[in-house]
Amino acid sequence: YLDCLPFGSSKKQSTIMALKQISSNKCFGGLQKGFERVSVELNCKMKFAVYLPPKAETGKCPALYWLSGLICTEQSFISKSGYHQAASEHGLFVIAPDTSPHGCNAKGEDESWDFGTGAGFYADATEDPWKTNYRMYSYITEELPQLINANFPVDPQRTSIFGHSMGDQSKWKAYNATHLVKSYPGSQPGILTDQGKDDQFLLDEQLLPDNFIAACTERKIPVVFRLQEGNEHSYYFIATFITDHIRHHAKYLNA
Amino acid sequence: YLDCLPFGSSKKQSTIMALKQISSNKCFGGLQKGFERVSVELNCKMKFAVYLPPKAETGKCPALYWLSGLICTEQSFISKSGYHQAASEHGLFVIAPDTSPHGCNAKGEDESWDFGTGAGFYADATEDPWKTNYRMYSYITEELPQLINANFPVDPQRTSIFGHSMGDQSKWKAYNATHLVKSYPGSQPGILTDQGKDDQFLLDEQLLPDNFIAACTERKIPVVFRLQEGNEHSYYFIATFITDHIRHHAKYLNA
Repeated sequence: YLDCLPFGSSKKQSTIMALKQISSNKCFGGLQKGFERVSVELNCKMKFAVYLPPKAETGKCPALYWLSGLICTEQSFISKSGYHQAASEHGLFVIAPDTSPHGCNAKGEDESWDFGTGAGFYADATEDPWKTNYRMYSYITEELPQLINANFPVDPQRTSIFGHSMGDQSKWKAYNATHLVKSYPGSQPGILTDQGKDDQFLLDEQLLPDNFIAACTERKIPVVFRLQEGNEHSYYFIATFITDHIRHHAKYLNA
Repeated sequence: YLDCLPFGSSKKQSTIMALKQISSNKCFGGLQKGFERVSVELNCKMKFAVYLPPKAETGKCPALYWLSGLICTEQSFISKSGYHQAASEHGLFVIAPDTSPHGCNAKGEDESWDFGTGAGFYADATEDPWKTNYRMYSYITEELPQLINANFPVDPQRTSIFGHSMGDQSKWKAYNATHLVKSYPGSQPGILTDQGKDDQFLLDEQLLPDNFIAACTERKIPVVFRLQEGNEHSYYFIATFITDHIRHHAKYLNA
């Protein structure tokens, strides 16, 4: 991969040195920042966004990760969802990564809207030409949190995750929410899900929330599932309910 | 101009017939809609956005017009400002027009970021090659309100306007807020202005809020001017204070 990571230095030091801030905007008293950095997992430059709540000026805050859906980038959520007010009030860092590697020139990566540069699916690819760069699972679950923990005053013990639209990879059990709920060994905090009733992906039966609810019921995991009349799949839907979701996470993170 | 307006019919009928809905998304219980229509003033297709608050289902509501700044389109405000919750709660229609004609092929219209297709300045041009299409003042003050009043359950007696970044055309007194305040013959409702203290256009002295405040003081027009520490010119600034501004307008519109 690119040789701009200083490997002679300690891991933490190299992490800090390689982080390049590309934007900073005050928003609801905190700062919406954008960064760029060469990812070790993905072997390419990756952008991600971090919201620093006002409370972070005086102490550690929890970190909430947002995973965007197909065709999105790290810009989509931070510019369209209207999440800042709630994150500011509840004192949460919000981290929004990109959805896929970009500019790696894997054959065919730009040919389809639902595969490649717009749709990494947060999975680790195992086959050529994808396996060199398309390792989003490891990036999201390991590299990025380490980077965030090393560079910002977050409390690594208080971390949570939410997102929209990259849900149901039914062929891949390791990445399927329904299967993960069934096999999850940890504690059982509540789950909040909003689903647009007029969502075309629901009407086309690409989304299968009934399976997810059944799995939660089987495992006695408390789930609030709200089928929202008239809503579909857009950021107007996300914006309408984002405050409820941030409040839901804050309830556990700030407990 | 284009011949898709049925001129044999009455004005109201032709207005309704020519309005083409191109999007509709539920948001905070109301509907964010997008429309396209051939403008009589501008001699080209123009897009605009209308938010219908939930209250519009049962009666007439006030209309609040938003004017976007340079390089924006009708999409900028509706996707980035996070205004919907406040508009929904206060029962306001919000109309967001495009900032300029597009695709008219006036010589040079795409050459500069601050003149032409990204910057109509809400003025009526008087010289070639602009005067045929660049008549944004008449479009915004006459054609568009007539269109809105004819097609939506708005109360034409309760209309207001706000915006960001196309303010100070100091050469053109008819379009300059400071001069307009001095000469305004009507009643004197309060004015609310937020200005980012770190706004580059302020630092470069392209924005002259002191002149505006002095004019308001001279005319005894109550103005609340807030210089916002750390904020600049972006939609993150707009989003932070948009609810305050909608509440300000609602106070008069719903009085």
